[in-house]
Amino acid sequence: MAKEEYAVDFSPLGRRALVGRGMTLLEAAHQAGVRLNAVCGGAGICGACRVRVVAGEVSPAVDAEAGIMADGFRLACQVRVLGDVRVDVPPESITAPQRVQIEGRESVVDFDPVVRVLDVTTDPPSLSDPRADSERLRQSLPMADDERMKLTFDRGALSQLPVVLRKGGWHVRVVMKGAEVIAVLPVGVAPLGLAVDVGTTKLAAYLVDLESGETLAAMGVMNPQIAYGDDVIARIASAMAGEAQGLELHRVLVEGLDGLAGDLCVQAGRDRGDVVEAVLAGNTCMQHLALGLPVSSLGLAPYVPVLSESYDLKARDLGAHWAPGASVHFLPSVAGFVGADHVAMILATAIHQSAEITLGLDIGTNTEIILAAGDRLLSCSCASGPAFEGAHIRDGMRAAPGAVERVRLGSGATGDFSIVEYQTIEDAPPVGICGSGLIDGVAVMLRAGVLRENGAMRSGHPRVRGSGRMAEFLLVPAGEREAPRDVAITRKDVQEVQLAKAAIRAGIEALLENAGLDAGRIERVVVAGAFGTYLDVDSALAIGMFPPLSRDRFVQAGNAAGTGSRMALVSRRCREAARDIASRIVYVELTMHPRFVELYAKALAFP
Amino acid sequence: MAKEEYAVDFSPLGRRALVGRGMTLLEAAHQAGVRLNAVCGGAGICGACRVRVVAGEVSPAVDAEAGIMADGFRLACQVRVLGDVRVDVPPESITAPQRVQIEGRESVVDFDPVVRVLDVTTDPPSLSDPRADSERLRQSLPMADDERMKLTFDRGALSQLPVVLRKGGWHVRVVMKGAEVIAVLPVGVAPLGLAVDVGTTKLAAYLVDLESGETLAAMGVMNPQIAYGDDVIARIASAMAGEAQGLELHRVLVEGLDGLAGDLCVQAGRDRGDVVEAVLAGNTCMQHLALGLPVSSLGLAPYVPVLSESYDLKARDLGAHWAPGASVHFLPSVAGFVGADHVAMILATAIHQSAEITLGLDIGTNTEIILAAGDRLLSCSCASGPAFEGAHIRDGMRAAPGAVERVRLGSGATGDFSIVEYQTIEDAPPVGICGSGLIDGVAVMLRAGVLRENGAMRSGHPRVRGSGRMAEFLLVPAGEREAPRDVAITRKDVQEVQLAKAAIRAGIEALLENAGLDAGRIERVVVAGAFGTYLDVDSALAIGMFPPLSRDRFVQAGNAAGTGSRMALVSRRCREAARDIASRIVYVELTMHPRFVELYAKALAFP
Repeated sequence: MAKEEYAVDFSPLGRRALVGRGMTLLEAAHQAGVRLNAVCGGAGICGACRVRVVAGEVSPAVDAEAGIMADGFRLACQVRVLGDVRVDVPPESITAPQRVQIEGRESVVDFDPVVRVLDVTTDPPSLSDPRADSERLRQSLPMADDERMKLTFDRGALSQLPVVLRKGGWHVRVVMKGAEVIAVLPVGVAPLGLAVDVGTTKLAAYLVDLESGETLAAMGVMNPQIAYGDDVIARIASAMAGEAQGLELHRVLVEGLDGLAGDLCVQAGRDRGDVVEAVLAGNTCMQHLALGLPVSSLGLAPYVPVLSESYDLKARDLGAHWAPGASVHFLPSVAGFVGADHVAMILATAIHQSAEITLGLDIGTNTEIILAAGDRLLSCSCASGPAFEGAHIRDGMRAAPGAVERVRLGSGATGDFSIVEYQTIEDAPPVGICGSGLIDGVAVMLRAGVLRENGAMRSGHPRVRGSGRMAEFLLVPAGEREAPRDVAITRKDVQEVQLAKAAIRAGIEALLENAGLDAGRIERVVVAGAFGTYLDVDSALAIGMFPPLSRDRFVQAGNAAGTGSRMALVSRRCREAARDIASRIVYVELTMHPRFVELYAKALAFP
Repeated sequence: MAKEEYAVDFSPLGRRALVGRGMTLLEAAHQAGVRLNAVCGGAGICGACRVRVVAGEVSPAVDAEAGIMADGFRLACQVRVLGDVRVDVPPESITAPQRVQIEGRESVVDFDPVVRVLDVTTDPPSLSDPRADSERLRQSLPMADDERMKLTFDRGALSQLPVVLRKGGWHVRVVMKGAEVIAVLPVGVAPLGLAVDVGTTKLAAYLVDLESGETLAAMGVMNPQIAYGDDVIARIASAMAGEAQGLELHRVLVEGLDGLAGDLCVQAGRDRGDVVEAVLAGNTCMQHLALGLPVSSLGLAPYVPVLSESYDLKARDLGAHWAPGASVHFLPSVAGFVGADHVAMILATAIHQSAEITLGLDIGTNTEIILAAGDRLLSCSCASGPAFEGAHIRDGMRAAPGAVERVRLGSGATGDFSIVEYQTIEDAPPVGICGSGLIDGVAVMLRAGVLRENGAMRSGHPRVRGSGRMAEFLLVPAGEREAPRDVAITRKDVQEVQLAKAAIRAGIEALLENAGLDAGRIERVVVAGAFGTYLDVDSALAIGMFPPLSRDRFVQAGNAAGTGSRMALVSRRCREAARDIASRIVYVELTMHPRFVELYAKALAFP
């Protein structure tokens, strides 16, 4: 007779879960407090949750695991517990303890990169055979004659050719993209690729070996454009100040990308000059600024991009110091405020292929929302504002050490609603509140009965000070846990949260209306992005940011845009899929939606 | 009864020829001392000899003249004299009196440029139609759907697009190259093209209206690389000194080209930013340096180029400040010392299509020779040395004011071989001797019986001073016509001429041997290039530089490389023809020729 519960031990973390037969390792990890990556929400797509089963009985491998079994890995989301099990968790499968917007993940998408590698040996030249190096190489490449004749050489590759040919004793490695020779490397050197999620605030980048598909390093840094404004609108205003300013924003971004590539290469012990291909997935404004295109038309209605389709450009045209023939693939956008990052998120989470009615959100200053229902993909962008990034909030701050990121009310045992528990990032002394803490805080206030439906604060609760428009809810009194000052949520802060969550909720409702669906029909909600990763879904439900759906329909997908860009880096089919997604999406302009104002007004109230 | 002779008057020059019925206007011009351009040697191909027949009876127009008849022009080489005729010669049809390596010539090749111009009107965007500018333009272009879908946008054109669209009220001119939009201009602005003969010493450039095909301006300037060495070998040595030096040679050349484009545009009252296409035809080393490719392998046997095929590159990759999407077409080369200038010369003179056995020469420090016989094209390069450019000659100098450029012996009437007549460039006081003067001088010495077959100087002639290895032949005594010093040809100078002319002659003989032909079979000899234009063919024949052929088989083609580059600028078929020429040519490496040393030794002697 089978036991009712099995022990699942996670090493080297020393955590244990007691779970029922048939539960997945991902679920067990969740229960044990092991934060395994699960970009796709356990669908077996993203490959982020790979673990090694060291001992014990589990379910056999499924198709999705074929690509990683050879290395002894399993996908935690696909493995079901059939006995006591011991699992080894590699570091890259754990959500980074710091708030870095990257996950180390080995792709299990079809490895089908845009570049191919050919090792070639040519005859050395002589007076009786003084053909040009390029001609000599062309004739030596193992390919059909019609392909051979169509072959072209990037100028950068040409400039490498004579040196590498002679140093290598007429034995070289040729890197091709389509019909073009884009790099000539010494034999044995694998070409590198770079995938970057270009966020308004942060750049998250991955260095990938394009011969093996292996991710060699990952890193997140601030977008250096931050000096020119916190958000997209401020950046557009900066760029519009003049041609020089626009070029300056382009330049600092490219320098940032270039430096990031260099740092990643140092981390991996490789050479920046071997980077032959990059994929960029940013919002529409970041894609424009990275490309060096004017952004002024993005700043004014009707918010028209210069370019929305995917685009390939030589990296040298951007000023990047990679392989001389390297190129950059810009993933396609949908509209002025529905960018390539949104497309990459959809690609990574496979929302476009979902058989279920699925809602996907990228929450930020602008929140992009996708609704997939049947063959339809509807998308919109809501001006949710910077409240969740800590702006316009009195004690608000970015998600940095010391920010209150979690707030809980009372303890289940005592039920004392005057007790507020909180957690700060890196357990540092509390200095302010970030977006996830803010939403938790408002949810707590609702649960404690402090807030009215319209956001007004009731007095009477021991944490409430002042009244009316001056009322505030104290989270951390100065001095507690070395807090340098009080941290509180004011009436006005609550109002900012109302404006933000109402924008998101109204966007969701508008898409549902356009699709002719009730909210209850939504079978899956994917919450992506950095903020979406740390957001407490229960709190978000409590304040009415999302339609009232059962908690188990929600999936937090992490930096799915980064994952999507990495998929596009190593797979031509994924690039094709991204183009297909962008062209299928029907963009819904909310300012043109007949009922948007009504929906927004209704969403301002708390449930 | 028809008169035996007709008078042909050339205005505004005031010259007259009395010619027989049926003689061409080109022949009449020659007789009258009017130096009409005739790049193709009178084959009706180049269109350089256009004139207006103002009065008198001439033969009807032939097909070759169809393109120019509308403007009232005829081709002098095609018009036969049938009565007394008055002809108006436009300035651009006359060989420049100064030694500028450009001829103003309107192309009569098929006008079939690589770029096409489309004027487009789009709907303005709105909130209900917020398509990207590029997408809007794509949908508005008058083309078939499959072409529309394949259309791509140059990044430079994209950056112009939003500005020009809005300034032009959604009405713009699109310039396309193949499937790529390379520029977006205001309606009414014609795109410009640039054709450049990139010589080691000089750059000759033409600015062309790519909508009408008209040449708007022409200019010749020194190659700014001259500061890094006089000849190709010196340039290669400079470039090999280090990577920085190689880049420096690339940079100064591109700056020179960029500046030349600017000057031409100023001359034509146009904007450098409207230049969308350029064609470059230089020797292999110049093509490499212009492209920024390493040249070290060109400096050592087996003299292997990095690239010999034709090549297209964005002008911005060179650092040129033309239209942001402008590109540069590099004509193909044949070998390390048979360059794109040679291919352009063949293209312009149609040697590759010649039904006659034709020899073509580009005389310089390296002399490239082509022999066309039937379908065969044989080519070689001879190290003829710098003697004809005045180097290694005691009183030698470049073809600059004050250089003795013509030398004649005695006067026909007196037959006094002690009288030496000479002419200097711009009639300036004689200060030295240039290449054409040197060949004339040696021819004069031979005619006066001063030189032995082996080049030794006989004493006894009043102009000969000294003896043996110290002997010299005085051309200009100091003080004569304000000469600051004696100008003479020394025994050693004669030897330099022998080495140079022997190299050329041996090259010709080697090609003839490879083709299995006797020299007498040559029906036409085209002498191209700056030096070839001013060379006296009779003198060159007298010293044995060429096989002993009748003078009327020789044609001096001027700067045919410049003409060829201009043809390739305005005609895709000409580019195709250039590729065809380069691939058909069989390169003969003279240092590998079994009898070259023997041929060379034999050619050292004077006839």
